[in-house]
Amino acid sequence: MSFNILNRINSPLDLEQLSNEEMLLLAEEVRVFIIEVVRKNGGHLSSSLGVVELTLALLKVFPQIDHRIVWDVGHQAYAYKILTGRRDAFPSLRQLGGLSGFPKMSESPYDAFDTGHSSTSISLAVGIAQAKKRKGETGRVLAVIGDGALTSGLAFEGLNQAGYLYEDMIVVLNDNGMSIAPNVGALSRFMARALSGKAYHSFRRELRRVLTALPGIGQDLVNLARRSENSIKALSTPGILFEAFHFNYVGPVEGHNLPRLIEVFNNLADVPGPILVHVLTQKGHGYEPAEANPRRFHGLSVNFYMPSQIENADSRRLNYTQAFGQSLLKLAQKDDRIIGITAAMPEGTGLDELARSLPGQYMDVGIAEQHAVTLAAGMASQGLRPVVAIYSTFMQRAYDQIAHDVCIPGLPVVLALDRAGIVGEDGASHQGLLDISFLRSLPNLSLLAPSNENELGHMLASALQHNGPVAIRYPRGAGLGVPLDDDFHLLPWGKGEVLRTGKDLLILALGNRVAPAFQAAAELSAGGLEATVINARFVKPLDMDLITHWAGICGRILTVEENMAAGGFGSAVLEGLHKNGVMAPVKIVAVDDVFIEHGSPEKLRALHGLDQAGIVRAALALAAE
Amino acid sequence: MSFNILNRINSPLDLEQLSNEEMLLLAEEVRVFIIEVVRKNGGHLSSSLGVVELTLALLKVFPQIDHRIVWDVGHQAYAYKILTGRRDAFPSLRQLGGLSGFPKMSESPYDAFDTGHSSTSISLAVGIAQAKKRKGETGRVLAVIGDGALTSGLAFEGLNQAGYLYEDMIVVLNDNGMSIAPNVGALSRFMARALSGKAYHSFRRELRRVLTALPGIGQDLVNLARRSENSIKALSTPGILFEAFHFNYVGPVEGHNLPRLIEVFNNLADVPGPILVHVLTQKGHGYEPAEANPRRFHGLSVNFYMPSQIENADSRRLNYTQAFGQSLLKLAQKDDRIIGITAAMPEGTGLDELARSLPGQYMDVGIAEQHAVTLAAGMASQGLRPVVAIYSTFMQRAYDQIAHDVCIPGLPVVLALDRAGIVGEDGASHQGLLDISFLRSLPNLSLLAPSNENELGHMLASALQHNGPVAIRYPRGAGLGVPLDDDFHLLPWGKGEVLRTGKDLLILALGNRVAPAFQAAAELSAGGLEATVINARFVKPLDMDLITHWAGICGRILTVEENMAAGGFGSAVLEGLHKNGVMAPVKIVAVDDVFIEHGSPEKLRALHGLDQAGIVRAALALAAE
Repeated sequence: MSFNILNRINSPLDLEQLSNEEMLLLAEEVRVFIIEVVRKNGGHLSSSLGVVELTLALLKVFPQIDHRIVWDVGHQAYAYKILTGRRDAFPSLRQLGGLSGFPKMSESPYDAFDTGHSSTSISLAVGIAQAKKRKGETGRVLAVIGDGALTSGLAFEGLNQAGYLYEDMIVVLNDNGMSIAPNVGALSRFMARALSGKAYHSFRRELRRVLTALPGIGQDLVNLARRSENSIKALSTPGILFEAFHFNYVGPVEGHNLPRLIEVFNNLADVPGPILVHVLTQKGHGYEPAEANPRRFHGLSVNFYMPSQIENADSRRLNYTQAFGQSLLKLAQKDDRIIGITAAMPEGTGLDELARSLPGQYMDVGIAEQHAVTLAAGMASQGLRPVVAIYSTFMQRAYDQIAHDVCIPGLPVVLALDRAGIVGEDGASHQGLLDISFLRSLPNLSLLAPSNENELGHMLASALQHNGPVAIRYPRGAGLGVPLDDDFHLLPWGKGEVLRTGKDLLILALGNRVAPAFQAAAELSAGGLEATVINARFVKPLDMDLITHWAGICGRILTVEENMAAGGFGSAVLEGLHKNGVMAPVKIVAVDDVFIEHGSPEKLRALHGLDQAGIVRAALALAAE
Repeated sequence: MSFNILNRINSPLDLEQLSNEEMLLLAEEVRVFIIEVVRKNGGHLSSSLGVVELTLALLKVFPQIDHRIVWDVGHQAYAYKILTGRRDAFPSLRQLGGLSGFPKMSESPYDAFDTGHSSTSISLAVGIAQAKKRKGETGRVLAVIGDGALTSGLAFEGLNQAGYLYEDMIVVLNDNGMSIAPNVGALSRFMARALSGKAYHSFRRELRRVLTALPGIGQDLVNLARRSENSIKALSTPGILFEAFHFNYVGPVEGHNLPRLIEVFNNLADVPGPILVHVLTQKGHGYEPAEANPRRFHGLSVNFYMPSQIENADSRRLNYTQAFGQSLLKLAQKDDRIIGITAAMPEGTGLDELARSLPGQYMDVGIAEQHAVTLAAGMASQGLRPVVAIYSTFMQRAYDQIAHDVCIPGLPVVLALDRAGIVGEDGASHQGLLDISFLRSLPNLSLLAPSNENELGHMLASALQHNGPVAIRYPRGAGLGVPLDDDFHLLPWGKGEVLRTGKDLLILALGNRVAPAFQAAAELSAGGLEATVINARFVKPLDMDLITHWAGICGRILTVEENMAAGGFGSAVLEGLHKNGVMAPVKIVAVDDVFIEHGSPEKLRALHGLDQAGIVRAALALAAE
C-alpha cells in the first residue's frame, strides 16, 4: 500500500501531528483503502464511506483510550478500525480469524462495545457514563447513531433516560436521511420539514426588529421575547424533539466538512449534560456508484465492483429471499387480505417486489421490529393476513410481541424469518441460530423450515391457509436451483417427507440441512450404511408418528439442523420420543452452545460439523456406539 | 346487588338513555362494585378506579361494537367489563373459569384485543385502523394508554408510525402522573413542566395585543404571529412531543369530570387523522385508602381491605421477592459496584429496600425493559456489577438485549427473574413459563433456580462472583419459611444437590418444584417406591456428572419444573443424557404446550399436574412403564 499519511497513523494519538490539509488527504486514503478491501471481502460500503470525516474528527478530538465511542450497529466502523491500530489487519475484514465487520471489545481496547444490532448505543452510553461517574474516571462518552436506528424503541428508551439523568454524553446523530431503506416514520418527516425551515432565521430577525422598535415595553416583554425566541427556535429546528428529552441540540452540521466537524467537537469537548450533535452525511460519500445507489451497496458480497456481475446476479440460481418475495407477490395478487410487512429491509427480505407491484399490500415500518409484529397482530385480529418478514436475528427483538400479541390470542400472523442459520461474514450478532429455541416453546405457534426454495413457496401458501400463528425459517443465500412451481399446493400440516429409506440409521434433517444430509446418506451408503432420510418440514407440530415408525425400523437417530442444539429441533425430537416412550440413541448435529464468529458460511459449517462431512462423521460415530 | 342504574345497563347501548345525573350515579355504583369484588378476589384496584369516568365517557360516545377500544395493559378495564355485558359475571373476576383480569377477545366481542403487557395498544390500534380502512369498515379506533406505558419503546414505535400514516385514530393518554411507580423519564418531567405553564395563555394574550396594536404590519406579520402562536402553544403544552409525531393534541382534560369528557369525545368523534387526548386522572380515585397509597393498591391479593392484615403481612413467611431484596441490599452494602436496576417495579421486585438504603446503587428506568438490560451491559463493560430485576414475563421484552448485549460479549450482568413459573390470577399474559426455554439456548449464560428463599440469597451472592452472565429465576409468593442465613456462601457452580436417595427412581426437580417433589418422594416411599431426589439448582451448566451417576443407579428419571416442557429443564436433561450416551426412560413434568389462564396458583398447579399429587401420578406411571 502506498498511503503516505495513513501509513504513519498507528494510533489515533498520531492524528494530533496532522495539519488540516493532511487530515483531508488522510480521509481520501482511508476511503480508497475501505473500497479496496470491501471490493475483495464484501462488507458494508456505503455506511462506512459516509462517516470517514466524522470518524477522523472524533478521533482527532477524542484520541485517548479513556474516551468511549459506541458505534450503533457498528457496520460503519471500518475507518475507525483502520485508525485505531488495525490498519494492517484490515484486509482480513470479515474473514475467518480476521477482523470482525463490527466493533468487538475483544479485538481492540478502542472498541467500546460489541455492536451489530441497531439502536443499542444510547443505552450503552448511559451505562458507560454511569459507570465512569461512579468510578471517578475521566473521558468523554459518545454514541454515534443513524437516523434510521433512532426509530427503534430501544433508542427512544435510552434517550428518555439519558435526558432524565442529565447524563454527560454526546449523541452524534448521523443523519443520512435514509438508514438502510428510506425512513418511514413521522419522526423523519418532521426532521426533514424542520431542516428546510430557513423560516426560523428570518422570523427571528423580524420579531426582534418589531419588538425592539416598540416603545416602553418593559422588562416583561423583553423576557417574553426571549422566551418566544427559544420556543420558536426549538420548534423550527430538528432540535425540538431532543430538547423535549432534555438534550442540548447542536446542528445540523455538514458531515463531510472535516474542519468544521473538528471545530464542533472541540467546542463540545467539555460541555456537561446530554448533547445531541446532528451531523448530515451522505451514504457512500466519495464513491460514485455507492452514492448513486447506496442501498445496493449497503451490505455487499465479494466482487461487487464488476458491474456485469451485478447485472447478471439474477440469472443465477434464485436465492431464498427472491423465492420468498416472488411467492408472496403471487399469493398477494390473489388475496388482498395479504399484507407484507418489513422493518426497513424491503430488498433484504425480498418484499421490494411486492412494494413495486402491490404497494397497497405492503408496509415498511422502519427499524421497529416490535411494532411490526404487534401491528400485524392488530391487522390479523380484523381478518387480514399479514406476513412479517424479518431476519431471524432481528426477530429476537420482537420475541415478546410474538408471544404476547400473536401466540396468546392465536392469531393468523405469518412470521417469515430470513437469514435463519449460519449467515457468515456478519458474525456472531447476525447468525440466526436461536430462533427454533425461542419459538418452539410458544403454544399455538407452528414452525416450519423448507428444504429448498420451491418448498418455501408451498410452505408460505400453506401457512396463509392455516388458522393460527406460523413461523417459517429459511436460510441466507442461494437455493438448490430447484425451479419454482407455477401453482402452489398445500402441504399436509405437521407431516414430514421421507426422501430415502434404509434400515441402519434414521436421519431427521431440517431446512437447508436436508440436502447435505441426503448427500451424506449417499456417501454412507457407499460405505455400506443405509440410512432413511426424512425432510422434517415441521419443527412444530412435529411428525412424531412418522418419526416413531422409522425409529422402530432404524434404531438409531441422527438429527441435523442449523440452530443451537439447546432447545432446538433435535431437542424437540428427544422430547417427542420420550413422551411416546420410544427408547433410541439420538445424536444431535447442531451448534453446540457457542456464538459463531464471522467467516464464510462454508468454512463455518465445516468448522462446526454442520456440513456433509460433519454429518457423515456424526453418523459413523453413532453407528459405532 | 342493589345498583339501581347499573342493573339496567346490559350493554353500552343502554347508556344512551341516561341523563348526566344518572351517569354520575352510575360511576359511583361501578366504583362500589369494583371495590366490592376486588376486595374478595384481589386485583388491580387503583388503575381501575382511576378510569371509571373515562370508561363511561368512552362507552357513552362510542357504544357500538364496531368501535374498537384497545386498553393498554388492560388491568384498568374492570369498569369496561362491567358495562359491556359482563356485570353479572364480574364477581368471578380472576378466578379459575371466571372473567379474566385483562381484556380477552374470547370473552367478549367488546374486547378489541388481548392485552396484559404494557405499551402494545398504539401498534394494535394502527393495525386495526389499517384493517378497517382496507375493508371499508366503519367505527372509531381508540387506544387508552397510561403515561408510564408511554416510556416503553414499543409505544414510541407505534406513535411514530401512526403519525406517519396519518392514521384515523384516537390515543387517549391516561395520565395519572405515576404509572406503577412514579415516572422517571425526561418525557414525564417535560410533560409535568409543560403542564404547569399557564404562561402560555397569558403570553398568547399579550402577544396578540402587542401585535394587533402595531400599525401597518401587513399580512406577513399577521401570518408570522399566527405561526408563532402555534409554535408557542405547542411548546408550552405537553402537546409538542405528540405534535412532533403529527398527532393532533387535545388537552389536558380533567379525567374525573364526566360531562366534560363526554363533550370532548363527542367533539372528536369524526375528526380525521391521529389525535391524542390527554386526560388527567387520579389512581384510586373515589376510594380513600387507594388514593392515599395507590402503589400498595396497584395489584392486590385477596382481602386487602382489612388494615390489620396489611400491617401484619410482613410477620408472615418471607416471600421470594423480599428474600431477594434483603439479600441484594446486604450484598450491595459490602460492594459498591453492585447496582440494582428495576423497570418501574421497585416494590414488585423488592428493590425498594435498596432504593431506600443505598439510593446511589439503585436505578429505576421506567417501563423500559430493553433499555434496562442494555444499560446494565454498558455498566458491566466498565466493571460494575448490575443486577436487573424484572418479572419473568416482562423479561421476554428484553430477549434480544440479553442475547446481543449481554451474552455475546459475555458480560457479568445478573438477571433476576421474579414471578417465574405460575403466577396465578393475572393469567396467560403474566405467567412466567417461557424463560427457561428462551434463556437456555444462549451461550455464555448460566441459569439458576433456588429451591427455597434462603438458597436464593446464596445464589445471588454466587452469581455476583461469577465472571459472566447469570440469570436466576424464582417464583411469585411465599417461600418455604426457611430463615435467611446471616452470611452468604458460594454455591459450587453447576452442581446439583442430592436431597434423598433411593434406587427405584430419580427425580430431578428445579426451583419451587423441589419441595413438592421431595414430599412426593416421601409419599411414594410409603407406597414402596424409593426415589432419589436431586435439587438441580442449575439448569445451565447442568450437573450431568451427578445426573448420569444417579441415572445409572435408578434407571428411570422424572424431571419436574414450572416452565413449558418444550425447550425447558427436562429437555436439557434429555439433551445431556443423549449426548453422554445414557439410555434411560425420562418423563417430563412441566406445562404441556398451552398458555395457562387465570386462577389461583394452587388450582392451576393441580390442573396441570405440577403439584405433589401430579408428581406422584407421573412417577407411578413412569415406574409402571
